[in-house]
Amino acid sequence: MKRLKFGIVGLGRLGRIHGENIAWHVPGSELIAACSIVPEELDYAKETLGVKDTYSSYVDMIKNPELDGVVIVSPSGFHLEQIQLALLAGKHVFCEKPIGLDVDEIKRTITTIEQHFDQVFFLGFMRRYDASYQYAKELVEAGEIGDLTVVRCYGIDPSSGMESFVKFAKRSNSGGIFADMSIHDIDLLRWFTKTEVKRVWALGKNAAYPELDEAGELETGAAMLEMQDKTIAFLVAGRNAVHGYHVEMELIGTKGTISLAHHPEKNLVTICNEHGVVRPTSQNFSERFKQAFIDEMRAFVACINKGKQPEVSANDGLQATIVAEACRKSWQTGELINL
Amino acid sequence: MKRLKFGIVGLGRLGRIHGENIAWHVPGSELIAACSIVPEELDYAKETLGVKDTYSSYVDMIKNPELDGVVIVSPSGFHLEQIQLALLAGKHVFCEKPIGLDVDEIKRTITTIEQHFDQVFFLGFMRRYDASYQYAKELVEAGEIGDLTVVRCYGIDPSSGMESFVKFAKRSNSGGIFADMSIHDIDLLRWFTKTEVKRVWALGKNAAYPELDEAGELETGAAMLEMQDKTIAFLVAGRNAVHGYHVEMELIGTKGTISLAHHPEKNLVTICNEHGVVRPTSQNFSERFKQAFIDEMRAFVACINKGKQPEVSANDGLQATIVAEACRKSWQTGELINL
Amino acid sequence: MKRLKFGIVGLGRLGRIHGENIAWHVPGSELIAACSIVPEELDYAKETLGVKDTYSSYVDMIKNPELDGVVIVSPSGFHLEQIQLALLAGKHVFCEKPIGLDVDEIKRTITTIEQHFDQVFFLGFMRRYDASYQYAKELVEAGEIGDLTVVRCYGIDPSSGMESFVKFAKRSNSGGIFADMSIHDIDLLRWFTKTEVKRVWALGKNAAYPELDEAGELETGAAMLEMQDKTIAFLVAGRNAVHGYHVEMELIGTKGTISLAHHPEKNLVTICNEHGVVRPTSQNFSERFKQAFIDEMRAFVACINKGKQPEVSANDGLQATIVAEACRKSWQTGELINL
Amino acid sequence: MKRLKFGIVGLGRLGRIHGENIAWHVPGSELIAACSIVPEELDYAKETLGVKDTYSSYVDMIKNPELDGVVIVSPSGFHLEQIQLALLAGKHVFCEKPIGLDVDEIKRTITTIEQHFDQVFFLGFMRRYDASYQYAKELVEAGEIGDLTVVRCYGIDPSSGMESFVKFAKRSNSGGIFADMSIHDIDLLRWFTKTEVKRVWALGKNAAYPELDEAGELETGAAMLEMQDKTIAFLVAGRNAVHGYHVEMELIGTKGTISLAHHPEKNLVTICNEHGVVRPTSQNFSERFKQAFIDEMRAFVACINKGKQPEVSANDGLQATIVAEACRKSWQTGELINL
Repeated sequence: MKRLKFGIVGLGRLGRIHGENIAWHVPGSELIAACSIVPEELDYAKETLGVKDTYSSYVDMIKNPELDGVVIVSPSGFHLEQIQLALLAGKHVFCEKPIGLDVDEIKRTITTIEQHFDQVFFLGFMRRYDASYQYAKELVEAGEIGDLTVVRCYGIDPSSGMESFVKFAKRSNSGGIFADMSIHDIDLLRWFTKTEVKRVWALGKNAAYPELDEAGELETGAAMLEMQDKTIAFLVAGRNAVHGYHVEMELIGTKGTISLAHHPEKNLVTICNEHGVVRPTSQNFSERFKQAFIDEMRAFVACINKGKQPEVSANDGLQATIVAEACRKSWQTGELINL
Repeated sequence: MKRLKFGIVGLGRLGRIHGENIAWHVPGSELIAACSIVPEELDYAKETLGVKDTYSSYVDMIKNPELDGVVIVSPSGFHLEQIQLALLAGKHVFCEKPIGLDVDEIKRTITTIEQHFDQVFFLGFMRRYDASYQYAKELVEAGEIGDLTVVRCYGIDPSSGMESFVKFAKRSNSGGIFADMSIHDIDLLRWFTKTEVKRVWALGKNAAYPELDEAGELETGAAMLEMQDKTIAFLVAGRNAVHGYHVEMELIGTKGTISLAHHPEKNLVTICNEHGVVRPTSQNFSERFKQAFIDEMRAFVACINKGKQPEVSANDGLQATIVAEACRKSWQTGELINL
Repeated sequence: MKRLKFGIVGLGRLGRIHGENIAWHVPGSELIAACSIVPEELDYAKETLGVKDTYSSYVDMIKNPELDGVVIVSPSGFHLEQIQLALLAGKHVFCEKPIGLDVDEIKRTITTIEQHFDQVFFLGFMRRYDASYQYAKELVEAGEIGDLTVVRCYGIDPSSGMESFVKFAKRSNSGGIFADMSIHDIDLLRWFTKTEVKRVWALGKNAAYPELDEAGELETGAAMLEMQDKTIAFLVAGRNAVHGYHVEMELIGTKGTISLAHHPEKNLVTICNEHGVVRPTSQNFSERFKQAFIDEMRAFVACINKGKQPEVSANDGLQATIVAEACRKSWQTGELINL
Repeated sequence: MKRLKFGIVGLGRLGRIHGENIAWHVPGSELIAACSIVPEELDYAKETLGVKDTYSSYVDMIKNPELDGVVIVSPSGFHLEQIQLALLAGKHVFCEKPIGLDVDEIKRTITTIEQHFDQVFFLGFMRRYDASYQYAKELVEAGEIGDLTVVRCYGIDPSSGMESFVKFAKRSNSGGIFADMSIHDIDLLRWFTKTEVKRVWALGKNAAYPELDEAGELETGAAMLEMQDKTIAFLVAGRNAVHGYHVEMELIGTKGTISLAHHPEKNLVTICNEHGVVRPTSQNFSERFKQAFIDEMRAFVACINKGKQPEVSANDGLQATIVAEACRKSWQTGELINL
């Protein structure tokens, strides 16, 4: 089995996760190139990941004829252009979510992706590769809970990040809590219901950090959505979970209910002490989705080896962006938004 | 300690629960009178509950000078008139929810209630007396979870009742799922947030019994509500919980989260068998709220003995009805409703 | 329905629970007499429980011809004599566990009980009346978990009582942890397995309070027992549960496993906070078994009304005492004890 | 970073797990050789694992000068000899548990291991590398639950394997349930308490398959052990868990209790259906300890790279075997065994 050779662009927190996974945890893959404008990131790539070639220019990296594919973990604003360039250079592409920030530009990129149908384009909605979501999906597909009636998804970041977020929000635009946080949940919603969003109403409240009101940002956002088939969806996106990293899903069907991580249990340990019966919790996304990040990268490599596209498509990225944008608009205007 | 003497009107399923509680489980109370137009119910009152005097006329019953108070468990449409008559006859009143069906009539009755301020008027929102809700309320009041951001309440009846409901719905009007089922959840929402509903959007889906569409009834209804202080609320009302009687609440605050009966555990037993790790569930409201029904009746008697009104007021009944009505209207029109 | 009239002897912590239950929570019963050598306890009986007649002499109380039965909640050393006297006086008897301290004397009392077969003798193993144990028993009887292989019972008191216990143990003899704490678990073991103990080996460790070694007392005791049918049993008796009142049971059968209160959840509330996912715990026996104490007293009254003996017999009290004694002896000698 | 080169002996169910891990999931390692007397296993090694050199003779394989180390997953009876030969050939050694079957031979092998102190000897007690056990160990070392008083360990195989075990047991000797199943639990017991077993009493019951009595084998075995410091331990070893693969541990300390996998939850999914609230369970050891098997192999490679011995030693293997043997002897003789 020949080893596929990859280059990575972006080696921040998430970039390093992907970098280590390709380098060490995906059989049949090698990380041979890395691109960053941060010299320390390139040092890390060489010293820790054993990367041969480093680049400060993405255009230079993708000229490397050895490369079979690229892994894009750069800031979201660069995704679309880097996807296009890599495809034109004949490389397979793994792109971290979101596919892009602007709906029209995403549509143009999708045209390019479709033209390069024999190159794999893989969008990093890693939750689809988490064992618990996979298990839930199988149950739903097998009809175990009948027809879906209500879907509820929460994605709440640990409050340990609040203070730095508040500082950041005063000077910069996060893109909004729905695009930033709910995008994974919107993808899950579409994946499980197999239908599209019809209408949405969104709300928000800044209770711990009311100063976010001025910045036009949210500590907690929420939305109720009606799907084309009348399925009802609830979303909560937050940044202030005191107990850790809280990502849960609930599916209410006509024959049963599935609850996934209602309490974000870290492991199989329970402690009884003066606080009561205590289960420790996941503390961050890299802990919670450690294996899912590995498994999605393995799936990317498997797609290349089998010459087929993944189940998750560029259009999934487009639709999730459209819905997140509708949530933002509904919250800002206070109106119901029809899609 | 003198025993207070009560008469009850209505001895259906819930009436019998209240009847047995006053007769047997509330120290300092006696059930001496019962009124019903169903002869079997009066036989039951005499034989099983040991009631001395039975009546087919409510007006006759409240003339009984021995009676200290009445317990109204008749069909909802009779509540307001029976409250008025009992107050005018000088009796203390316990009235099962809802206080009434028409907002203007409720307001007129509240005037009467206020005039009879030295008679106790007690509205049967029994969940407030459940040990778990009481415990949650104490935590919130103590500031344990900070300021509330999101409140989520589900009330879903067991699917064992679905078929008879569908038959019923084809000929009669249930009052709508929000008035019928969500009224308790709306009361909890107001009790916990201490603020009023500002806007609401409601949805509904009939997935298992699409024939309910024609009847204008719902198998599952849902609403998102914005409170005056921007707190976000989600409601689900349903009639089709395969696993039993599902009533849960979640409170997300700035310092923590409270989850109440996310899984409606019946008792402290867990079974491991070929299905996995199984916890049996509550099967109906009388099982789940058995002690709460006793404790609210004890609270009613305590109010009489202490000469004070309960924390839950007729206005709470009015407001819950107004919100339930707004949910219905939003669902029927598809519009956001401002309150 | 005539009300049965009862007298109670002993109004300490547990006596007050039983006193309030007969007075207020058991339909068809009245508490008319109380006996104690502590004047404050008699004041309490008159003022709070509404008892008519109080006595400092037990012999005087049982002469009261109005009394249908007595409830014995005196110190354990008095149980056997008070049972005998009450039976001879023609009264029905409820006796708190243990039936007595000395095996031979218990046997003699059983003879008296058998002679008075038309008077109810009820031994207060209240756990048998707890809803969760009842539910587990029904599952086992229905064959849901097949044949029993392993039974494990823990009874651990909250550590809040440790310091006063250590002081007490330095001057007095508690009767030993197995007689004091495990007696309920031994009864459950016999109730569920329907067979007798054949051999036992017991151990003990004083880790938090090593000074108990000198007093010949135990902070934690444990035993493994072999039943006549080879079923294996584990017992743990402790006094130092930091998280509250810990009473659990596990039944491993050939077709499944039942776990009862592995974590002693207080109610249906879960809190997510900086400690993790937290479930509050039961804090003491009166909280955990509140309803079981009521239900056993109702069962006592029902036995009198129906003229039949309860399922739990004086012999159950005898056997539990014999096994507890064997545990003590095994721990003290370090040897296996055959029964 | 140079890749270490390994050969494996034995490619049965567990051998394949180790083979795949070294080949694919351990950065810095390569599987270049495999030895088996089963031709299909060698075909698998070549075709699936990409192994270059295959051998039917272990002696031949270890002559391969390219090999840095060997992984021994052969039948238990071969372990000791293969350890010795590999050490003499200058190879690092990973050996699956148990280290051997005979205490005296294990002692002799330990002498050889000690002489080859610059070669890594790693014994496959993989549970020590499981994230939940690691987390529990850290809590205990940090003093979170104070001094240990009671340790309880269960290891129960799924009942799906019972029928084939019964057939096997009629013709062959399994080595006994304590050596076969409890060896991991005994290792955990010693790892957590840091002390040795002093006395043991063991019992057994064949309830579902009484025909095992004749074969001298056990469906369920149990033991109570006293440690040198008086800590009390309970072990259950079983082959008949209807709900799946049940491996749990409980640690009762003076300041709290740790419960690990009391219910062997498969993932983060909960289903509410007609059975109640259901959590799916782990079905076999390869699912439950998938990551632990990877992590122990990574630890083995890390030891080689750092030139240090692992925390788990050959003596740990010896002691676990001694205790398992004492359990067997106690069960067979019915006596207490002193160690």
